[in-house]
Amino acid sequence: MPPRRVIGIDAGGTKLLGGVVDEALVVHHRVHRTWRGEERQETLDIFVEAVEEVRSAAPDVEAVGFGIPALVEWETGVSRWSNHLPLDGVPFRDLMSERLGLPVVVDNDGNASMLAEARAGAARDARHAVLITLGTGIGSGVLIDGNVYRGALGFAPELGHVVLSLDGPECPGACPGVGCFEGEVSGRAIGELGHALAAERPESTLGRRLAEGLELSGGVVTELAHGGDPAARQAVAEVGRRLGFGLVGVANTFNPELIVLGGGAMRAGELLLAPAREVVSAHALPPMRDSVRIVPAEFGDEAGMLGAALLALGVGVA
Amino acid sequence: MPPRRVIGIDAGGTKLLGGVVDEALVVHHRVHRTWRGEERQETLDIFVEAVEEVRSAAPDVEAVGFGIPALVEWETGVSRWSNHLPLDGVPFRDLMSERLGLPVVVDNDGNASMLAEARAGAARDARHAVLITLGTGIGSGVLIDGNVYRGALGFAPELGHVVLSLDGPECPGACPGVGCFEGEVSGRAIGELGHALAAERPESTLGRRLAEGLELSGGVVTELAHGGDPAARQAVAEVGRRLGFGLVGVANTFNPELIVLGGGAMRAGELLLAPAREVVSAHALPPMRDSVRIVPAEFGDEAGMLGAALLALGVGVA
Repeated sequence: MPPRRVIGIDAGGTKLLGGVVDEALVVHHRVHRTWRGEERQETLDIFVEAVEEVRSAAPDVEAVGFGIPALVEWETGVSRWSNHLPLDGVPFRDLMSERLGLPVVVDNDGNASMLAEARAGAARDARHAVLITLGTGIGSGVLIDGNVYRGALGFAPELGHVVLSLDGPECPGACPGVGCFEGEVSGRAIGELGHALAAERPESTLGRRLAEGLELSGGVVTELAHGGDPAARQAVAEVGRRLGFGLVGVANTFNPELIVLGGGAMRAGELLLAPAREVVSAHALPPMRDSVRIVPAEFGDEAGMLGAALLALGVGVA
Repeated sequence: MPPRRVIGIDAGGTKLLGGVVDEALVVHHRVHRTWRGEERQETLDIFVEAVEEVRSAAPDVEAVGFGIPALVEWETGVSRWSNHLPLDGVPFRDLMSERLGLPVVVDNDGNASMLAEARAGAARDARHAVLITLGTGIGSGVLIDGNVYRGALGFAPELGHVVLSLDGPECPGACPGVGCFEGEVSGRAIGELGHALAAERPESTLGRRLAEGLELSGGVVTELAHGGDPAARQAVAEVGRRLGFGLVGVANTFNPELIVLGGGAMRAGELLLAPAREVVSAHALPPMRDSVRIVPAEFGDEAGMLGAALLALGVGVA
């Protein structure tokens, strides 16, 4: 008997990644799309096109799982709110199932990533873990006693929108919060801080790149930090320090065995992680600090797709 | 057959409350003690004396449950860390069981309170809830799918030691954190803020009381606020506002049906709660905001004792 196959789709705020995935989590065909500010109907059409593209290569797929950057009501599969895609109030599961003629499962993208890391990745031996993905914004998932935690209605956890800075700035993630973790710590924060430091230190490589008109994204600042530029390193280290204070809250809240960090900002590696670990060591409650490990995610950009596929395979849906 | 009876003991940072409790949660005999900075051995002796005092009135008790202000390792019953009592590294369960000759269960006091409110109090109809007790410091408990959440080793949750204020002051709770929720929001914070406002506004009742040499505790400031003094009301409202930002984080993290607020600072009632609710309405993610209720605890000072008794009765220990 051939292995069961499904389609997993992970939609972030800027792009979509999908594939045909089998029970062993081997990916057979991949599809990519980039969001370009489409309206609701076009956005949904792109989801359908992406699925149909991979499905044409694997007509035997049983179901489709979606991880989407939205607060998804678990029982109904309705996307209640999204600050990234125009999906507020969309009955995503039923609508997709009707258009595709296949069973559909939909969850928040952070939850999907947590599921993949828990079943086969960095958290595979853990019962209690927290995943944080540091991309343009912050995604998150929580594993409690081996199950992905979704809260009363499916909207949990949104750790990127915990208040880290009382009276801080408005959340850049278009959420109604102020001083959100996501505003202080993310790929975007690395870019913003790099920009500020470039202006202060025009002699640094970072400063010269700014003078040359280069857009100082989080990725560019991280690259310059890896290249040794002190100003860029300072920007990454400061975001790592703030990350550490966010992780103090996470460790003290959940007493997890493991905090798994993923997302594009993790390209900064130890330049980001070392200051974060230092803050946790210095400021978390000793029993939490002494029992938590802070580790990189294993599946990188594919965690959400693999988790969505697991959901479609019936794993982690109970 | 007479109802089964146990002893429940709740130890906070300043006092101990205990009683004989039956299966219907009726309390038959009460005992009180106040901590006066005793050393470890004396502290443990006071626990034993308190139990023996109520036990003399009810020799038929089956077991003793303790809620203590400490991070308790659940499997072993060892108190690993406490900022309130000298109980670091004390094998509390085994030691008490040996001295008392009775089965003993021990848990964090916030967890015990959550258990009582979940089984018979404000959260009795909820599957997902968070309890926060605003006393001298902050205690907390989390209910997940009907069970009290303890984390990997039993140390969760310590919501009072989530970072609410990046680069804020050192935690007044003798924890290694900075900018902790507990420092910004608690009975102590009401007193401190009242003190600062009294100095700024010497014409207010608060100001005159300070000039008369009265110690402006959280309780005194709250009383003056109830009496209508604008400066005292301002102090309570500001702590309510900060509380609201902490609750934004709680709501966004857990998507609970219910946030239950208890502890002495709740004597401020709506003077504290109304500004907190306003902040949650304005700044929590809409799906969380629209589904969470913020309500007062029902058991007041007795929640910890009742929860400890429930543990002794075998409820909530699985």
